[in-house]
Amino acid sequence: MPEFLSLVPPDIARDTLLKHIEYSPGISQIPVFEALDRVLAMDIVSNENLPAFVRSTVDGYAVRCVDTFGSTETMPSFFSIIGEVRMGEKTDLTLSEGQCAVIHTGGMLPQGADAVVMIEHTQKSIANEIEVFRAIGKGENILHQGEDVEIGERIFSKGNVIQIGDIGGLLALGFVSIPVFNLPKVGIISTGDELVEPGDTLLPGKIRDINSYTLSNLIRKYGGIPKTYGIVRDNPDSLSLMMRQAHMENDLVIVTAGSSASVRDYTSDVVNLLGSPGVLVHGVNVRPGKPTILGYCDHKPVIGLPGNPVSALVIAMLFVLPVLRKLRGEVRVEPFVDQRVRVSINISSVTGREDWVPVKFLSPGRDGILVVEPIFYKSNLIFSVIRADGFVKIGSDANGIMPNDILDFYRI
Amino acid sequence: MPEFLSLVPPDIARDTLLKHIEYSPGISQIPVFEALDRVLAMDIVSNENLPAFVRSTVDGYAVRCVDTFGSTETMPSFFSIIGEVRMGEKTDLTLSEGQCAVIHTGGMLPQGADAVVMIEHTQKSIANEIEVFRAIGKGENILHQGEDVEIGERIFSKGNVIQIGDIGGLLALGFVSIPVFNLPKVGIISTGDELVEPGDTLLPGKIRDINSYTLSNLIRKYGGIPKTYGIVRDNPDSLSLMMRQAHMENDLVIVTAGSSASVRDYTSDVVNLLGSPGVLVHGVNVRPGKPTILGYCDHKPVIGLPGNPVSALVIAMLFVLPVLRKLRGEVRVEPFVDQRVRVSINISSVTGREDWVPVKFLSPGRDGILVVEPIFYKSNLIFSVIRADGFVKIGSDANGIMPNDILDFYRI
Repeated sequence: MPEFLSLVPPDIARDTLLKHIEYSPGISQIPVFEALDRVLAMDIVSNENLPAFVRSTVDGYAVRCVDTFGSTETMPSFFSIIGEVRMGEKTDLTLSEGQCAVIHTGGMLPQGADAVVMIEHTQKSIANEIEVFRAIGKGENILHQGEDVEIGERIFSKGNVIQIGDIGGLLALGFVSIPVFNLPKVGIISTGDELVEPGDTLLPGKIRDINSYTLSNLIRKYGGIPKTYGIVRDNPDSLSLMMRQAHMENDLVIVTAGSSASVRDYTSDVVNLLGSPGVLVHGVNVRPGKPTILGYCDHKPVIGLPGNPVSALVIAMLFVLPVLRKLRGEVRVEPFVDQRVRVSINISSVTGREDWVPVKFLSPGRDGILVVEPIFYKSNLIFSVIRADGFVKIGSDANGIMPNDILDFYRI
Repeated sequence: MPEFLSLVPPDIARDTLLKHIEYSPGISQIPVFEALDRVLAMDIVSNENLPAFVRSTVDGYAVRCVDTFGSTETMPSFFSIIGEVRMGEKTDLTLSEGQCAVIHTGGMLPQGADAVVMIEHTQKSIANEIEVFRAIGKGENILHQGEDVEIGERIFSKGNVIQIGDIGGLLALGFVSIPVFNLPKVGIISTGDELVEPGDTLLPGKIRDINSYTLSNLIRKYGGIPKTYGIVRDNPDSLSLMMRQAHMENDLVIVTAGSSASVRDYTSDVVNLLGSPGVLVHGVNVRPGKPTILGYCDHKPVIGLPGNPVSALVIAMLFVLPVLRKLRGEVRVEPFVDQRVRVSINISSVTGREDWVPVKFLSPGRDGILVVEPIFYKSNLIFSVIRADGFVKIGSDANGIMPNDILDFYRI
């Protein structure tokens, strides 16, 4: 049983694979209201000003600000009301000196008006006349044309992931459909003589395949289209056949190796058969997840994950999601730190190896930093990490972590 | 135009509405692999041990640990190999004194074995014999039956939101379908004479309706089924008719009021017509979002949001999502703090009112706490907050925030 000849640091391993990927699964034009979490395939430039017209931001009276100068509680200025601006209509009112018009929040300013007095700062003295108790400046309580966005402004860039607010911004400017990158298809294969489908009878010595389903859900959650290929028995030819099919039908193939050493050995040979350059990395200097395989075969990435469900999740976070993000057209593909956290107790680690340790939240300390407690687990104990809120990374330069040390925290 | 008679603090306003909700939209049995983010409707108790059998966690040799006692590099103990445990099968091997069996990670321990020696700590001396260079303890490198989960253990509770790891845990124990609460249906109405559909021609004085679409996406993202009812003109009868239909067809109704004062005035009357007790809160002491209406009508919650898209988003976060979570059967329904952050510059605020201020991330400070910069915006400028990473809450007891003050940060 061969040892890994040389273990590659995780960051270098990831970069090695990412820099091969030039492939994109194409572009589609889709309705904006269905575009949440999709990735823009082109820059978007506004064809309009937003707001398109000068609007009031309050309920009150549109005025010429110069007519309010010098007004106070005791020395109000007087305005005659020449009409009301109706919501959603262009008004044909025009203000002359000493005139005002009733206006509502969002209403279009009449000709001549350059500010709005809030209703709270006025009083109706007689019919069609108000007193104004305060001087206001030019532009007060109004939004100018184009104050939010100007014609020709680039509002979103290629690679942006569409958020809920973005949908509002696009629709506000009349974009009802946008070009987005297609979702990458991801083929998922599990291997191992010990595996059975979760619904099947569990004979002695067998365990249920869970990786296919956790990985499918992870892929779907992060914006890919998963396709599971079921369980392949410990046999290079069966694996080769199935991987060839998955490679043809998808943009990325992930295979979770059976936990037996023999399977781990031939998986890399099978990856090499899928096309050149083949296996780029076999063995990563990380715990858990050492036996990871990263390959690029005939223009498509292929990733071999450890069969242990905890390792599979960590390696998915470290390698599968970054590759998925790159295929999706995202700009920021590396795993990203959620926040810095303080560790409650010491954690042992070995210099030279990166460790990812599941942790659960305790509560924020007095300085505001969240305190987390590491969850110690044996390999393969899925339930011991189910309740984890995420992982902390212990860098390869660390030789153990002391209580109160601050580490980067990553959500699952 | 009536002022709000009394503004209710946001937390009290929310509690007032939440405590009325006793309604649940029912329960369905669904496949576990489709249950991500769904809410469990019953406790789940394991019918099995996990692992179901004693398993090796390494590649090596199953032994009786007592036979390794005293072994060292210079004084190894010798074992004869009586066979190999095949993956996924119950082995019929039984170890006697001085015997061992080849075993792979995940393999089932043979009778008599109580530990596994890692292959790295052995050497094959002659065919069918190994030297062991280290003494190992009972249970070393094995998982006991039920070590992860024992028969009868409650593994998940009613109200748990199913995460990716949970799917693995459930499937590992043979649960292929689970009872979950149905997704609440949410009716969404926009009102205002100034509104047009995003795809329609924009005449002077009009703006495009974006709230229906941002709110739909928010509801879908957080686990509801949104249904939009389009734009209702500023007319109490039309609004009443549409709200009655939405109330009949959904578990929650939200209406974004047109920004004009007249619409704000009659919306609460229309809510009262939908059933008792009707409007519970009209006017919340929060900025933005003061004109919010919270009602409970004939056993269903009804929420009136300000038309300003920024306010609508904040109020959705403060009131709509908690109500949605309660209807979904979640246990934790209040808005939850993502982390504590440090503010880069001062922010003015008024004692007695709660402020929600959009902020964007700068970078973590030297102490590990993320620094954020407030985004100052005028009412209705959607683009000025699109790039916000979330909001900080300034409590009603604060009278302005100083640079370096630490606040609670909430993601959108």
